[in-house]
Amino acid sequence: MLIEITDPADPRLDDYIRLRDVNLRKHLESERGLFIAEGEKVIRRAIEAGYPPRSFLLAERWLSSLSDVLADHDQIPVYRVTEELAEQVTGFHVHRGALASLHRQQRHTVDDLLALDRLVVAEDIVDHTNVGAILRSAAGLGWQGALLTQRSADPLYRRSIKVSMGSVFSLPWARLEDWGGAVGMLHEHGFRTVALALANDAVDLDQARRLLQSDQQTKIAILLGTEGAGLSRRWIDQSSLVAKIPMYAGIDSLNVAAATAVACYALGPSGHDRPTSA
Amino acid sequence: MLIEITDPADPRLDDYIRLRDVNLRKHLESERGLFIAEGEKVIRRAIEAGYPPRSFLLAERWLSSLSDVLADHDQIPVYRVTEELAEQVTGFHVHRGALASLHRQQRHTVDDLLALDRLVVAEDIVDHTNVGAILRSAAGLGWQGALLTQRSADPLYRRSIKVSMGSVFSLPWARLEDWGGAVGMLHEHGFRTVALALANDAVDLDQARRLLQSDQQTKIAILLGTEGAGLSRRWIDQSSLVAKIPMYAGIDSLNVAAATAVACYALGPSGHDRPTSA
Repeated sequence: MLIEITDPADPRLDDYIRLRDVNLRKHLESERGLFIAEGEKVIRRAIEAGYPPRSFLLAERWLSSLSDVLADHDQIPVYRVTEELAEQVTGFHVHRGALASLHRQQRHTVDDLLALDRLVVAEDIVDHTNVGAILRSAAGLGWQGALLTQRSADPLYRRSIKVSMGSVFSLPWARLEDWGGAVGMLHEHGFRTVALALANDAVDLDQARRLLQSDQQTKIAILLGTEGAGLSRRWIDQSSLVAKIPMYAGIDSLNVAAATAVACYALGPSGHDRPTSA
Repeated sequence: MLIEITDPADPRLDDYIRLRDVNLRKHLESERGLFIAEGEKVIRRAIEAGYPPRSFLLAERWLSSLSDVLADHDQIPVYRVTEELAEQVTGFHVHRGALASLHRQQRHTVDDLLALDRLVVAEDIVDHTNVGAILRSAAGLGWQGALLTQRSADPLYRRSIKVSMGSVFSLPWARLEDWGGAVGMLHEHGFRTVALALANDAVDLDQARRLLQSDQQTKIAILLGTEGAGLSRRWIDQSSLVAKIPMYAGIDSLNVAAATAVACYALGPSGHDRPTSA
């Protein structure tokens, strides 16, 4: 349903206003129950994953590249605008020229996640870039899902989605309701928890891998701490195992997204087995 | 040398103007031979690494935390400003309240780098965040230096420095002059080159590690390709070995900073040995 819009104040564009204003967007998106996908590839992935679109905002030259998607959703408004108008509304130059607003849905529960074998668990990772990168690495390296504390950044925020290249749509994730009881709950469901922390009593990641293998442990959850301060003492103390990545050259730590990639590789199926299915 | 400044147009603040304007900063910094360090910790690391400061820009509350550094450089101007004025000049709210302008120096040559044993080699990594993250991961995981093609992003750009947490000061790096001859030059200097690429003929990273170990190869260079398109065909074809990180769940790739961390871990000293020195 193609609708040409020439007035940047047209209320039909309200889903797309000021996309760089994080605080405004947080409220707006949760109140209206929406999220924004940017770029043809990411929009396709969101729709393939089953999120229903509310509308599309496209500059002329993107209409044809998404024509099959638009035909499949011919009841959904497609706002055709100039790139200048898109910039006026969103507050930045939309490089990829295509935006979609989709219905926000919580697709998995904590129980769904607990039924899986390999999880990453994010404690207060507040940066959208990091959450996006962590979910992409986890999925790509053979981990099956992510649990996030309430204070962790929103996986469906535009920036998280973009950095994750849409992995946030396909990787199951859910919010933990009870931070304090999370590690105990994982243990009750048969997980060994590996806290990634530069603690004095931590074993090297390689040793952690051997310990888990000798256990023949199949349910593993990696606990990841917040950007600055790292994991809480509570989670470290309760975890089955504390593991660290050996550091060199006086560097005190890796960034949390890099550390997650290393841990997901070393403790996951890629690090020691050949994958049997793609 | 404490100097209070109350006029945002004061030309003594010219080193610090419009820090978010990437194009302006690129020209300004190379013409004047300077770079900007942000935050107390990063400023300390730049000075400890031997870069001479040109000036400091500080809000009142940061004077005391850097007092020892300022005392050691009492001939260098310290511009004391309000946070509002700092924001007017730089174009953003300086969270960490302290900025320094330092003399840009090329501290290592390509020959210095070729004398080392473990290098990462970046081909056209154009994003400052990625360059910063790559250098931090390389250093932290026991790699000794980085070579960058001419088109790769500047390790001394403010954003690179920040993401690297100052690793760009301590890890030796240099620019390759000849892209086309780079891989051949590495081989002439005794390196085995490992191209990280999702090519059909690539071996899994774990297998690459075993191959290098069975060779007792001590000089290793990891070749890393540009964000979108990956490594050039030329570098892949010339490399000793093409390695890939096995991917799962239909995810096509990791982001280049995450892939680098995984490769530096798997092929570096952390992945299979305990470090003998910190």
